[in-house]
Amino acid sequence: MTEERVEFRVSPDRYRHWRVSYDGPVATLVMDVDEQGGLVPGYELKLNSYDLGVDIELYDAVQRLRFEHPEVRTVVITSGKPKIFCAGANIRMLAASAHGWKVNFCKFTNETRNGIEDATANSGQTYLAAVNGTASGGGYELALACEHIMLIDDRSSAVSLPELPLLGVLPGTGGLTRVSDKRHVRRDLADYFSTRPEGVGGKKAVQWRLVDEAVPRPRWDETVAERAAELAGRSGRPEGAAGVALTPLGKTRDDDAISYSCVSARLDRDAGSVSITVRGPASDPPADMAGAAGQGAGFWPLAVTRELDDLILDLRTNETELGTWVFRTEGDPAAVLAYDDLLLANTGDWFASEVLHYLKRTLRRLDVTSRSLIAVIEPGSCFAGSLLELALAADRSFQLAGVFQAVDPNTGAPDAEPAAITLGNINVGPLTMSNELTRLQTRFWGDEAGYEAAGKRRGAAIEAEDAADLGLITFAPDDIDWDEEIRIATEERASFSPDALTGLEANYRFAGPETMETKIFGRLSAWQNWIFNRPNASGPDGALRRFGTGQRAVFDRKRV
Amino acid sequence: MTEERVEFRVSPDRYRHWRVSYDGPVATLVMDVDEQGGLVPGYELKLNSYDLGVDIELYDAVQRLRFEHPEVRTVVITSGKPKIFCAGANIRMLAASAHGWKVNFCKFTNETRNGIEDATANSGQTYLAAVNGTASGGGYELALACEHIMLIDDRSSAVSLPELPLLGVLPGTGGLTRVSDKRHVRRDLADYFSTRPEGVGGKKAVQWRLVDEAVPRPRWDETVAERAAELAGRSGRPEGAAGVALTPLGKTRDDDAISYSCVSARLDRDAGSVSITVRGPASDPPADMAGAAGQGAGFWPLAVTRELDDLILDLRTNETELGTWVFRTEGDPAAVLAYDDLLLANTGDWFASEVLHYLKRTLRRLDVTSRSLIAVIEPGSCFAGSLLELALAADRSFQLAGVFQAVDPNTGAPDAEPAAITLGNINVGPLTMSNELTRLQTRFWGDEAGYEAAGKRRGAAIEAEDAADLGLITFAPDDIDWDEEIRIATEERASFSPDALTGLEANYRFAGPETMETKIFGRLSAWQNWIFNRPNASGPDGALRRFGTGQRAVFDRKRV
Repeated sequence: MTEERVEFRVSPDRYRHWRVSYDGPVATLVMDVDEQGGLVPGYELKLNSYDLGVDIELYDAVQRLRFEHPEVRTVVITSGKPKIFCAGANIRMLAASAHGWKVNFCKFTNETRNGIEDATANSGQTYLAAVNGTASGGGYELALACEHIMLIDDRSSAVSLPELPLLGVLPGTGGLTRVSDKRHVRRDLADYFSTRPEGVGGKKAVQWRLVDEAVPRPRWDETVAERAAELAGRSGRPEGAAGVALTPLGKTRDDDAISYSCVSARLDRDAGSVSITVRGPASDPPADMAGAAGQGAGFWPLAVTRELDDLILDLRTNETELGTWVFRTEGDPAAVLAYDDLLLANTGDWFASEVLHYLKRTLRRLDVTSRSLIAVIEPGSCFAGSLLELALAADRSFQLAGVFQAVDPNTGAPDAEPAAITLGNINVGPLTMSNELTRLQTRFWGDEAGYEAAGKRRGAAIEAEDAADLGLITFAPDDIDWDEEIRIATEERASFSPDALTGLEANYRFAGPETMETKIFGRLSAWQNWIFNRPNASGPDGALRRFGTGQRAVFDRKRV
Repeated sequence: MTEERVEFRVSPDRYRHWRVSYDGPVATLVMDVDEQGGLVPGYELKLNSYDLGVDIELYDAVQRLRFEHPEVRTVVITSGKPKIFCAGANIRMLAASAHGWKVNFCKFTNETRNGIEDATANSGQTYLAAVNGTASGGGYELALACEHIMLIDDRSSAVSLPELPLLGVLPGTGGLTRVSDKRHVRRDLADYFSTRPEGVGGKKAVQWRLVDEAVPRPRWDETVAERAAELAGRSGRPEGAAGVALTPLGKTRDDDAISYSCVSARLDRDAGSVSITVRGPASDPPADMAGAAGQGAGFWPLAVTRELDDLILDLRTNETELGTWVFRTEGDPAAVLAYDDLLLANTGDWFASEVLHYLKRTLRRLDVTSRSLIAVIEPGSCFAGSLLELALAADRSFQLAGVFQAVDPNTGAPDAEPAAITLGNINVGPLTMSNELTRLQTRFWGDEAGYEAAGKRRGAAIEAEDAADLGLITFAPDDIDWDEEIRIATEERASFSPDALTGLEANYRFAGPETMETKIFGRLSAWQNWIFNRPNASGPDGALRRFGTGQRAVFDRKRV
């Protein structure tokens, strides 16, 4: 849809669509979309509808609230437009977009809404939807991501999911799953609601559990303020802590390379792959979290997480033909473990907790990324603790058995130390996948003995053959086979159907239990992708393309 | 693909692809596909590959083993061809099939494999895969549905899932889910395995958990017999019971109507809907299960289940443009409850148990049917106990408040008795959905109080407004609005995108927990449907269409 690269770095002084205000423990996020501010030419963002650009700002705001505003305990999301809360994703934008753009857009908006729920659950920042006008489609889905939904009761405002009757698609941002599994709307009412373009308002919306309360206009402002204060009262956010500023990311980007302070990527267009290198900390951790906060955005775990986050989003959106990401690491494993331990020893500290949850969310982003992930573990690498998660997130990992026989150009000697990985306490703790299991638990799902055996080796450097026996890596080739095996794995991956790989990976990465989040990414998104791809939605006579033309869509009526 | 109607009724004397033999507690199902026996012209069923016709026979065999053979405790599935166990679904058939045919085919084959697992879990008939040659794709998936997989260790036989590397699609019959969630194959090994067309055999297949044992040819026959005997030893099937013959279904079928002894359907092509009427028992139940067995296939619960099962399969496959099924019932609610109670009082009886599980499976078939389901509850209807499940399975239900004011042409008086529904003990018991909750539990997921309140009313006739208040039905219009409301609901449904409806229903019907079965139908099938629909698979240059032509597929390399 666009030849220009999408950039995810933004800051509040450049927001075009959102206003943030602060009143002690309550922040208010006002959605007031600039109609002319679309990310791509060709559509106007009427009725507080959104495109990727609007959502990039929302994501930024949600992140900054967590890191820069420890005092904020309730976040009120409301609209700056009269009578309309939010009309959802812009339909002209969707209709004009390529399939891949739509899917990627929905993935990012889903992740932002999951992040809102994560802030409520884990950050003591509870989101309150103050729906002061009609919320339709993605607008209602935004409200659904909030803990408490207030709807103005003015005889015209309603919540609705009109995607099916008007556009012939599904709500793409978790709507169906949250209606049934979070709000517990009864299935037949949910079905009826989702076929009614005008939606449901007032008392019936409360009765059906679509919203938590309907409040008449005269009592609106005071009731919103009351609820915000009540929700703030439940929070465990600290008193008087200073925030950590998310200063601009240092990033250089050209057609072949992306580079940050601890992360860099080489883009190999011929091979269809990206080589990503993540570097461990350059120094020992500060003595305590006060020291960490003093380092601000430069605190290594925060810096590396922000850079990985930006890189994932950049590559996902701008480099769709680079289908394989190869991860390497460099640095001192002991230093990574020391930083991890500092965080783990201070989970009661708001900043340590934010960093851990952010790393968790970023690794989850990796899990749902539709690229093949390969980890390459060589001498000098640093797959320890939090960085080992990259190897555990990979579809396959290769660890060199022994050392490279070629001499080291610096020392004139072969590598002295064989490649090793190190499990840390962080790998059995807070970095859960969206199935609420750790990557280690998911890996050994149904193999308790294997899980126990691996867990016992925490803290020790594990060389290749040992790691293979423990089931922590996939293959342990030696120097003779190394280059060839990795070359074949990467080339072979590039020869397969990209669609089939996406489906395979989406299934195999998530063994075991399901959660609302895995349902959204695994079940709902897959159905939505299928529907998006069908002529009944996206064909020239499909509902999505015909919307607003005055012509009815023409459907192939065969049920599939 | 075919203009001829597919018929699911078959009997062993007409099997072209399977041989069944019996040796005391062990039955052997030999797959020996007739190459020339394809259901549709245009392909040869080489290498024990299968099409819908082959699977219809398998389904029939599995059903008959449960009902006609109480003495069978182990079912060995093996191949009658040298060196090949089964090559999976026929690729030429898939390549030539329309999208809807492929999806429907996969759904049926999935249901049959789930039925195999259900027999193992609930029938005391344990399935043993004696993989005496290579099992690839759907061939390995058939083995995966068995409780124990033996692979012949002859240096050439292997198990494989070559769909991704060879065809650019996913294994379509639960393969990925069973590899990860049933066999607990580690995710990276599973990934590697699924990209390797030649598969994995011998000890490595055991080590990776792909099979349970690899047995050298000289010890093959005796080891298979040994395992079969061991598995039979665990069974609780009865000694010396006589089977119940599944005699031919009485069915009449023309373009406008399908009719059986207790089920009939009118096909309304203009409206795009089917009116289905299910009739309760014509007489009181027999005194005990011996009496029931004496009635054989005429025993009402078995008869009505078989007829529903056949009707669902017929309509699904042959009437894809009839997108809405409207269910009505007729008869004496007390009689239905009496039959239900007979079954519930005898769950230890093998025949009662088989009937209940069969009804459970048939209702599950309805749950995953991609048609809108509407229940219409009128005076004289019989939505009680097991038949009430039809209303609970529906996306919406309408129950008449009060009576029809128009006079009854027979009595000259208005209907005396208002429409009522009756919850029975069967609605809180064995008829679980594939999420392992009952339809009542799923309906009230997250609403314990609602569930309790409804459950207390078991046995009582519940009229419309009361049923609506209890949340057991959707709408309770009175005589004045009745016809109009039902007409609008049906017409509106026919005006929506059939694809979006399929996705909506697949999401809303399954609130709550997930199981391997819901993962297969909800997650894996949705991904597979998407992939099937993409040009990379099904386009003229896609992998599925190019297979066997000597030309490589051309892929759009964009990752979605």
